[in-house]
Amino acid sequence: MREPLTASELPRGFAFAGMHCGLKKSKLDLGILLSEVPASAAAVFTTNQVVAAPVVLCRAHMKKSRHKIRGIIVNSGNANCCSGPEGYAASVATANRLAQELGHVDPTQILVCSTGVIGAPLLVDKILLAVPELVRSRKSDAVSFEQFARAIMTTDTVPKWAAAKFRVGGRQVRIAACAKGSGMIHPNMATMFAFLATDASVTPPVLSRALREAVGPTFNSITVDGDTSTNDTVALLANGQAGGPSVRSASSDYKTFRSALEDVCHSLALAIVADGEGAQRVIEVEVRGASSNRAADQVARTIANSPLVKTAFAGADPNWGRILAAAGRSGVKFDFERVDIWLAGIEVCRGGREHPFDEIATHEKMLEKYLPLVVDLHAGEGHARLWTCDLTKEYIHINASYRT
Amino acid sequence: MREPLTASELPRGFAFAGMHCGLKKSKLDLGILLSEVPASAAAVFTTNQVVAAPVVLCRAHMKKSRHKIRGIIVNSGNANCCSGPEGYAASVATANRLAQELGHVDPTQILVCSTGVIGAPLLVDKILLAVPELVRSRKSDAVSFEQFARAIMTTDTVPKWAAAKFRVGGRQVRIAACAKGSGMIHPNMATMFAFLATDASVTPPVLSRALREAVGPTFNSITVDGDTSTNDTVALLANGQAGGPSVRSASSDYKTFRSALEDVCHSLALAIVADGEGAQRVIEVEVRGASSNRAADQVARTIANSPLVKTAFAGADPNWGRILAAAGRSGVKFDFERVDIWLAGIEVCRGGREHPFDEIATHEKMLEKYLPLVVDLHAGEGHARLWTCDLTKEYIHINASYRT
Repeated sequence: MREPLTASELPRGFAFAGMHCGLKKSKLDLGILLSEVPASAAAVFTTNQVVAAPVVLCRAHMKKSRHKIRGIIVNSGNANCCSGPEGYAASVATANRLAQELGHVDPTQILVCSTGVIGAPLLVDKILLAVPELVRSRKSDAVSFEQFARAIMTTDTVPKWAAAKFRVGGRQVRIAACAKGSGMIHPNMATMFAFLATDASVTPPVLSRALREAVGPTFNSITVDGDTSTNDTVALLANGQAGGPSVRSASSDYKTFRSALEDVCHSLALAIVADGEGAQRVIEVEVRGASSNRAADQVARTIANSPLVKTAFAGADPNWGRILAAAGRSGVKFDFERVDIWLAGIEVCRGGREHPFDEIATHEKMLEKYLPLVVDLHAGEGHARLWTCDLTKEYIHINASYRT
Repeated sequence: MREPLTASELPRGFAFAGMHCGLKKSKLDLGILLSEVPASAAAVFTTNQVVAAPVVLCRAHMKKSRHKIRGIIVNSGNANCCSGPEGYAASVATANRLAQELGHVDPTQILVCSTGVIGAPLLVDKILLAVPELVRSRKSDAVSFEQFARAIMTTDTVPKWAAAKFRVGGRQVRIAACAKGSGMIHPNMATMFAFLATDASVTPPVLSRALREAVGPTFNSITVDGDTSTNDTVALLANGQAGGPSVRSASSDYKTFRSALEDVCHSLALAIVADGEGAQRVIEVEVRGASSNRAADQVARTIANSPLVKTAFAGADPNWGRILAAAGRSGVKFDFERVDIWLAGIEVCRGGREHPFDEIATHEKMLEKYLPLVVDLHAGEGHARLWTCDLTKEYIHINASYRT
């Protein structure tokens, strides 16, 4: 867990709160992130066709509000998914109640997110009853931000946040963000959230482009077991309260903003993998020399999703044969007798065969918290990088009786 | 484990042997299956493009011998994969030595199979030295058949065999077969073998068709974690020693033969899943009402491969939300609000929502050894059935340090 944020890292004009409303036994389970003024909003949602009610609502609200959002309300403990018309009504009621409590806010300017068990009815009355107190308790300080970050957790063992400060058009601008996901990688189906707030001034189209670009190499590069959530949401609000002109597309300001945004997303994405259920270590899977970037990505995902590869990583076993065999079934064409593999910087396979290496030294290097794996296919210039974690007994323990 | 075979179940004109040659510490690690006369042969190999040397050799020998095979020699303890030109030379030398020892046999009439660790050099001298004794010890009895079945095992906890007796053209005909694979489902990459011998008289093209048809709904329906082996081989020899006319394509004899063959394959396939590494139970995943059989298969595979679904099965947790969410990311289109799900015969989800069920009774039913799961998409007539097993801590234990 990184250090708590300081007040100076928080973007201007945002307030936060987190509380316990009763969906979980005792932990924080309800949070809000509010902007003083309507903020430009960009969001990325799950691609699963089984989508939770709040995701359906968020998509509609983004459209109806023309990407101008005042606040995000999030509950943990229940995904409000596969919950029928009542589930959708619960999300609507939540948005309405928050809008009403804030005053002069259109409900379409509210996003609603839920995370937790799928299929159980959401006890929305607990949320509705808690909203007034939640709104009253909002503050623009680091403690409230942390409470918000804690309220969105499910099986996460630590809250996850990241921040960046940089200059745009001569003005100091900030991004603060938090995420949840105890992923290995989308472990409870209703798993990944990231909420990002910035006081930069950015129009919705530019914001949307920046978010899309930042999400690809970060959050979408840890989606390694393919168990795409029904509730995944990444939302970014930009309220312009730092002052100054808008960030224009293709400007140097855009590059600065986009780069800071990606850094924040990268940091959160890695925090999610590191807190993966039962995970002992983060594995960086880098594939080089594929016929295209897309082919490299496909090989990297197949390796990163292989239970055999992931269990070998749990044992810090330099079992490169499993890595090569996973690549071989990825559907990407290459000559396996040209492949080189490095584990923790040590070459273990050259030209598709074992390259002599010190077993004990390699095993020890593989025990470290961050383990780079490089696979060079020697079939072109394509390149991809993904992050995953090892598959341990603790993962089974956590997931074998998650509901009961 | 089923009962030992009896002498009357063994096909005529085949002999078997199994012994310890030193690739493993003490267990049997080398076996042969021989036909007195050249037998029609059909075989199915791994689709992984990383293929072991013996698979390359088998493919060549099948062609060169025009699908007439005298014997199969199998070692466990080493997959002879990613082993370079020396690895291929080792397979060639093994075939040559066995052919020579048998006398008057062309080496191309020998199939060679290897299973075990990938990437380690095969100590082929141990095999070559052992061949004469192996050939001398061959017998046509049930004990020798069992020794062969044991010699091909790796992490299997039990040997696996199956047999069928039936009439073709008025003659009594037999199929005896054994398999290895401690799969969950292709756990050690070099995992699945099945060797089938029959004294029916079948030409290679008809035999090949029958095998292809039988493998689809059996062995290929337990390939559930997608970790396709580099060494997978299913080989079927038919030596005609029962006498009588050849089984002709599209005849009633063909149907009888094909049906008996599929029964044997089904029985072995289920034995593999039941002996899955760390497995507590077999799960039958049936998908109905898909837009096509292919779509149903895709949904069934996605469910059967989901670590979240498999860990829920380990805990006998009726977490149907994970099942529906896995279906939702399968790439197959359907309306999730029409889906029904039954676990162990109990309806737990109707129309994409929870259907009231007794949690405790369902949990208890799910603890049984064989657990049927039915998912009805209500989107067409497509149907598929797969088998998988649960994902337990023991799987991690077995695989975290397989090599070391």
